[in-house]
Amino acid sequence: MSRITIFDTTLRDGAQGEGISFSVEDKVKIARKLDEFGVDYIEGGWPGSNPKDIEFFKHIARVKFKNSKMVSFGCTRRPRHTAESDPLIRNLVESGTPVIALFGKAWDFHVTDALRCPLEQNLDMIHDSVKYLKSLGREVIFDAEHFFDGCKANEEYALKSLQAAADAGADALVLCDTNGGSLPMEVRDITSLVCSRFKTPIGAHIHNDSGMAIANTVTAVRAGAVHVQGTINGYGERCGNANLCAIIPILELKLGHRCLPPGKLEEITEVSRFVDEVANLVPDERQPFVGKCAFAHKAGMHVDAVTKHESTYEHVTPESVGNDRRLLVSELSGGSTVVQKAAKIGIDLTKGSPEVKAALDTVAHLEHNGYSFDGAEASFELLLRKSLGMYRKLFDLKGFRVIIEKRGPEEEPITEATLKICVDGKEAFTVAEGDGPVHALDNALRLALKQFYGKELAKIKLTDFKVRVVNTRAGTAAKVRTVIESMDSEDSWSTVGVSTNIIEASWSALADSVEYGLLRHLPK
Amino acid sequence: MSRITIFDTTLRDGAQGEGISFSVEDKVKIARKLDEFGVDYIEGGWPGSNPKDIEFFKHIARVKFKNSKMVSFGCTRRPRHTAESDPLIRNLVESGTPVIALFGKAWDFHVTDALRCPLEQNLDMIHDSVKYLKSLGREVIFDAEHFFDGCKANEEYALKSLQAAADAGADALVLCDTNGGSLPMEVRDITSLVCSRFKTPIGAHIHNDSGMAIANTVTAVRAGAVHVQGTINGYGERCGNANLCAIIPILELKLGHRCLPPGKLEEITEVSRFVDEVANLVPDERQPFVGKCAFAHKAGMHVDAVTKHESTYEHVTPESVGNDRRLLVSELSGGSTVVQKAAKIGIDLTKGSPEVKAALDTVAHLEHNGYSFDGAEASFELLLRKSLGMYRKLFDLKGFRVIIEKRGPEEEPITEATLKICVDGKEAFTVAEGDGPVHALDNALRLALKQFYGKELAKIKLTDFKVRVVNTRAGTAAKVRTVIESMDSEDSWSTVGVSTNIIEASWSALADSVEYGLLRHLPK
Repeated sequence: MSRITIFDTTLRDGAQGEGISFSVEDKVKIARKLDEFGVDYIEGGWPGSNPKDIEFFKHIARVKFKNSKMVSFGCTRRPRHTAESDPLIRNLVESGTPVIALFGKAWDFHVTDALRCPLEQNLDMIHDSVKYLKSLGREVIFDAEHFFDGCKANEEYALKSLQAAADAGADALVLCDTNGGSLPMEVRDITSLVCSRFKTPIGAHIHNDSGMAIANTVTAVRAGAVHVQGTINGYGERCGNANLCAIIPILELKLGHRCLPPGKLEEITEVSRFVDEVANLVPDERQPFVGKCAFAHKAGMHVDAVTKHESTYEHVTPESVGNDRRLLVSELSGGSTVVQKAAKIGIDLTKGSPEVKAALDTVAHLEHNGYSFDGAEASFELLLRKSLGMYRKLFDLKGFRVIIEKRGPEEEPITEATLKICVDGKEAFTVAEGDGPVHALDNALRLALKQFYGKELAKIKLTDFKVRVVNTRAGTAAKVRTVIESMDSEDSWSTVGVSTNIIEASWSALADSVEYGLLRHLPK
Repeated sequence: MSRITIFDTTLRDGAQGEGISFSVEDKVKIARKLDEFGVDYIEGGWPGSNPKDIEFFKHIARVKFKNSKMVSFGCTRRPRHTAESDPLIRNLVESGTPVIALFGKAWDFHVTDALRCPLEQNLDMIHDSVKYLKSLGREVIFDAEHFFDGCKANEEYALKSLQAAADAGADALVLCDTNGGSLPMEVRDITSLVCSRFKTPIGAHIHNDSGMAIANTVTAVRAGAVHVQGTINGYGERCGNANLCAIIPILELKLGHRCLPPGKLEEITEVSRFVDEVANLVPDERQPFVGKCAFAHKAGMHVDAVTKHESTYEHVTPESVGNDRRLLVSELSGGSTVVQKAAKIGIDLTKGSPEVKAALDTVAHLEHNGYSFDGAEASFELLLRKSLGMYRKLFDLKGFRVIIEKRGPEEEPITEATLKICVDGKEAFTVAEGDGPVHALDNALRLALKQFYGKELAKIKLTDFKVRVVNTRAGTAAKVRTVIESMDSEDSWSTVGVSTNIIEASWSALADSVEYGLLRHLPK
């Protein structure tokens, strides 16, 4: 049961994936989640490359982590600077993180043709930079860029680059397959060679350009690596980085290593979906271990066998990674989920009871129409309450009208919403402007509810608003799913709405959000 | 340069993937494409399992193939039948294919617990079935189901199952990792063992439940397998089958094997996209070799290096697999990207010139305001043209008004857009309904442009619409980024718009999208 160190680079290398653009808030959210999950290192960004990452490190310095160490990433000093004078190194120091991941060149061709400096000088640059950062008391992880390709081209030089870092006191030497082109046999042989030569812990950082990043990372561990770099869901430049959502289960369940604190592996499916949600990416359903289809059985024979013996068509149990088995022909799944969710909000149900069946039918029907309650517990609770006759209606919608008008090519559009609701037979008819149609509707709704629930309403704040197209084929007439997140001083909650009309979808989510928030504060 | 046989099972095992439902016509289309592409075997379906597959084989019998042999799939005779009397075997014979893939049990646990028959009897079933089909002059490929798990549990019995098939004259013995849980080292050892025991050609059929199907298949070939089974784009039950779109390039480009007729590897990207199109699935952009992102560079340093030497950040050339290099524009990219992009659209710029600097400044400014061009090349091209004075304006917006009205809690909202534009001094004022505000605006714009660009407009279709909130803190007043994807018969393109008002953001993306599409078809 040897320990393998997990180094997450979702926020740095993962952010280089196409279509990924994290805000500072997104990054903080994910970092907190990763700490909770229990990875050893969180690489937060490259403070030298853009102002957003500098802002992130300023922000994250105030957050106290339980399990993880924060890492900033950067390159060895440039030829014309000393380590102390290089502004990029200064950015790393100023980021204030306890750990610094420093990448340097290990492939001679890259030194001469991309960096364009003498081979010896590059070794000095590695040595000086590591030594300087070590002298400041930082933990230094040396990422040997293109190590595998470098080793194939000039083994002696590649090893020298590691030696330069090791001699300067680096805490780990990480072998990078930067272009993602290496094969498992090459990774095995080269990692074994390095492990036999160095006492410093060896790590692996593998890209997925040959679709082998998971296998190559596991192979490196079998060959002696004890530190693994990767990203949640395999985000990353081009074809992505090694996917931690597969590597961690393989190392823990199949090879008996320990990567996470006890009990945490069962959260990996939830972590995977949380990160997709924050990145606003559609989850890959076929993703091993954590994907929606990973334990979905379609062929009749498989379904039949799997209900006799799980291990007939499953290599690990879905429970071990917090995922669910789904039998696609019968759609039997879900009963225990409803029971569990109900228990969470203090409602005692029995699996197989008519109440559970009714709730499941409603969920199935809504999911068929594009709903997803994965990230929208508040809407699910309202639905459950309605289905169980435990719902208290706070207002009736009579109607609304939203007008967006743009009067010239350079003019800002004007948005106005009118809304009529009814509370205990009393009508409220309001009009409000907003920065956009949902904002205007939100303002009109608040105005209308003020006279009835003013005190409670003041506590609720909308914090996030996300839109996703559910069936993309239909272009602008496609169905959209809107998720709204709100908070008060104690908690936050999410609600969901689905419609072909984005305003209607937003209205559903908005109404649920406000209603759920009010119910939290009104006397029961 | 040894020859590896490619056995495609997209139409059989691939069709067991969730969300895949091929019609008979779809299957015929794909089979023709695969034959053209040059795979050795096309497994068309399981004539015993459903009437659609029986119809497919009836249909396909009339098609003459150039490169591929058609295969029908089924199981060995059942305990209570002889090979001749088993109706499922009769279906195989009647399908009329020259090749039959027959699967049988190799794992003792499956024989006793799923099949529920004595171990010896299962060996007879394998032997009789292969022998009978061989006596009819068919080529018989024996798929040893669960072979790797079986071999780990009871090596002697697993090998006996292969022996039964080999003795009966099977033309190939295929080792299946049916649950997809095997690791590369296990696949290597077990395949080597089998290859040392049998003269019959050995094949590998691997599932992807550990994310290692590509690596395991390549490992099996290195250990002596000469026959590879897989699917286009890795379709298949649960996490899918081994992905031929990665395995074939690896075997041909990295290991010097020959899989396809000469020159055909360059068609693999097109084959991948064709099959996704027929299956009506959104292509996986991060897919190795053939994905849209496989050769997309985002980090400025990578872009800079790759334009100096392609091999710095690419393990194979995009041309070798018929894919394209893409340099993504973002705050992380530098002058080289702009120069390269401009060159692609026939504009000659120099890195460091004032034009490039101006364009970069504009990008930086827009990105700071929430734009992201990395998935929106068309908007970037329009921006570049504007910045260089090479832009031809097709219409002026005078204004629009969108009204969304909901008249009761259960009523569908009514959405209506009015739009005024001006082309060469001539005004068009239109009104249209839609399923949502963007759809209504799209309809109104098309109506307005029809009289000016009707022929060109007819070719453009909106295919996707994405919305993302850029700064989530501000709740419903947050800034949103809309990305619209459109296509004509030849190509697809993406555009982007950003605003606090979702309608304004959508309008920008929509206007760019239509304008870019029209410019493609109008005389220069």
